[in-house]
Amino acid sequence: MGQFPATLEEGIEWLASYGAEPDGGVTRTLYSPQWKEAQHALKGWMEEEGLAAYFDAIGNLFGRLSSSNPNAPTILIGSHVDSVKSGGKYDGAYGIIAGILALLQLKTQYGQPSINLEVVSFCEEEGSRFPIALWGSGMMTGIYSYNDICTIKDSEGNSFETAMMAAGFGLTEYRGRNDIQTFIELHIEQGPTLEKVNKAIGIVKAIVGQRRYRISVSGESNHVGTTSMKWRKDALHGAVNMIHDLYGSIKGYDEDLVTSVGQLFVEPNVPNVIPNTVQFTVDARHPNESVLSSFCQHFTETFESHAKKHELGIKVEMWHEVKPAPMDSHLNEIIESICFSRSIPCHWMNSGAGHDSQLFARICPTTILFVPSQGGISHSPLEYTSTKDLETGLTVLTELLHQLAY
Amino acid sequence: MGQFPATLEEGIEWLASYGAEPDGGVTRTLYSPQWKEAQHALKGWMEEEGLAAYFDAIGNLFGRLSSSNPNAPTILIGSHVDSVKSGGKYDGAYGIIAGILALLQLKTQYGQPSINLEVVSFCEEEGSRFPIALWGSGMMTGIYSYNDICTIKDSEGNSFETAMMAAGFGLTEYRGRNDIQTFIELHIEQGPTLEKVNKAIGIVKAIVGQRRYRISVSGESNHVGTTSMKWRKDALHGAVNMIHDLYGSIKGYDEDLVTSVGQLFVEPNVPNVIPNTVQFTVDARHPNESVLSSFCQHFTETFESHAKKHELGIKVEMWHEVKPAPMDSHLNEIIESICFSRSIPCHWMNSGAGHDSQLFARICPTTILFVPSQGGISHSPLEYTSTKDLETGLTVLTELLHQLAY
Repeated sequence: MGQFPATLEEGIEWLASYGAEPDGGVTRTLYSPQWKEAQHALKGWMEEEGLAAYFDAIGNLFGRLSSSNPNAPTILIGSHVDSVKSGGKYDGAYGIIAGILALLQLKTQYGQPSINLEVVSFCEEEGSRFPIALWGSGMMTGIYSYNDICTIKDSEGNSFETAMMAAGFGLTEYRGRNDIQTFIELHIEQGPTLEKVNKAIGIVKAIVGQRRYRISVSGESNHVGTTSMKWRKDALHGAVNMIHDLYGSIKGYDEDLVTSVGQLFVEPNVPNVIPNTVQFTVDARHPNESVLSSFCQHFTETFESHAKKHELGIKVEMWHEVKPAPMDSHLNEIIESICFSRSIPCHWMNSGAGHDSQLFARICPTTILFVPSQGGISHSPLEYTSTKDLETGLTVLTELLHQLAY
Repeated sequence: MGQFPATLEEGIEWLASYGAEPDGGVTRTLYSPQWKEAQHALKGWMEEEGLAAYFDAIGNLFGRLSSSNPNAPTILIGSHVDSVKSGGKYDGAYGIIAGILALLQLKTQYGQPSINLEVVSFCEEEGSRFPIALWGSGMMTGIYSYNDICTIKDSEGNSFETAMMAAGFGLTEYRGRNDIQTFIELHIEQGPTLEKVNKAIGIVKAIVGQRRYRISVSGESNHVGTTSMKWRKDALHGAVNMIHDLYGSIKGYDEDLVTSVGQLFVEPNVPNVIPNTVQFTVDARHPNESVLSSFCQHFTETFESHAKKHELGIKVEMWHEVKPAPMDSHLNEIIESICFSRSIPCHWMNSGAGHDSQLFARICPTTILFVPSQGGISHSPLEYTSTKDLETGLTVLTELLHQLAY
């Protein structure tokens, strides 16, 4: 390939060269040198191909194929350029590269659209450098403002504001837009469903709501040999009974409900001392708010009753909440009909992970399409999607934009 | 008090001044300067009071009240001078101080015994500096030899051998003894039983056997949001079911069985990632070897069946085993009759913690007597036993030695 890529496969490899790690992974955290180089390279490519390319005040990059109608609204297509530490080549990147290639193909084949088509490379979605996620789409959709980052620092103590300014952004007022009519994102699934059901396209009904809790259980430390079972206030015994019931109770709900205890700390964590404190997290997700809420209320009550029975203290704290975001059913029906007409096997599903689309769903018709992730692996150098699957996603996206904008 | 203590209360405070910590605790780890000062101070006190005092080759200190019969055997009385880091004033120390005071009282009141009485201040029991426990009694009873410590180092990299030699020991061959007829230890309970049942003396039927296991459960990490419950190989879910059953199954055994999971590590231990590895310890104790063995076999099989059901890997490794050590029933009957005749409330029980006595039980009639520990607290600056309870223990010990040696 020359300076800029010509194909989807080349585009993925080309963008992955910015922030490439020795382990095969990609690290492009927000406003880092690697991030900056990637955004400027994408801008160069857009310009080279005749798209009107520009940054907004915080570093979201746009490439515009304008309508002939000066009052036309805009269909925004894209995903995020930032990555987790040593993440994969496809997460975020695929949606940007495919968006650019779709616009170029439409431009070549059909010329100027009747609705503006704009590809976006969001500056940030992962929250992997600073403790804020969905920054790029959050500013565009009015969820965030500059106030939200003024006290935020990364793990090395660099302030968000200083890092943003050093990258050349955050220097002017953020100007919102009122021309966005539709938002469309193309993304790898980051889960095993499409591979397991052997389908090429995932049509997303909703991005699930999530709640994350931190549970602190407190008892009393004692010598394990000299303290009879009946006199113990064993925080780990209590926590184990709680988690056992958490996983047991999920069977009473539909298959869309998932819950996990991903993190658990024991104090003092010594083989011959009865634990006095256990802290663990509960992550619960479901596309329906009332189901999610009922499940969370149920396990909270169960935990409290276990604590009472074991004479343990308990603190239940919800530290993260995302409401379910339904995707636009009209857009999804068009996608389904495109798949049918081209004999592309598709599958209706939910997204268990968060995406920029969940914020756009609040302000305009939005959807996200998935392509398979091999082994369901993501956020890892092992992340992989075959070129054939990537091309299928691009085909559906291009046809969708054709139907919407011409 | 003068240079040396006159009472039990003074003796406890005096010995606690060697290695005193700002937090009120005591740190006397093996062969440290504080340890050395304490052993030499004890030797000075023994000599001052007319006991024949001497060290053996590894630093066990003895104070002897000889029989008039040159062929008489020896009753050994004592406990250990070393402590855990910032431990209490009573653990080990009480048994030495009370042993010295018992001999002095017997000498004053009854003169020379018909059997040699010798108090011992063992150099090491806790295993808190070097990864070896019961060193002092282990060498005396032939369980250990110099070979067992030649590669051992403390956490700062000091070799056991160098530390021992720097303290003035380990320079000569270790000479075993064949004159020990009986071993008697007086110790704080280090548990809550005597306080809960409101008794002054604990008569120990057996020091329990213990087994410690390390269990490694391995599954697969995945994104918590994108992986359906049915496709997970969640190591923590599996481990929780195992531990739940461990605690559940104990109900089928008698009250002497105790088991604990004191330590548990989760990998990668991140709220939104399904755990791929959980490592936890199981500590199980019972005074009867066959009960302990049957319980351990049962939970091992249960764990393996859970692993199979959840499609998880499992490794079960026993890394520590101590056989149950029954105490001498004849000695215990004498103790009980002393308590009855003096209206001292006593309680038959097991020791859930290990003690020097467990090694002597292999070579001679041995017993250990307990006095209450306030709140069951031990290995802490908060360790406390009232002077009244300490005095009661000394009274019973003195009378026991009187009956055995005069």
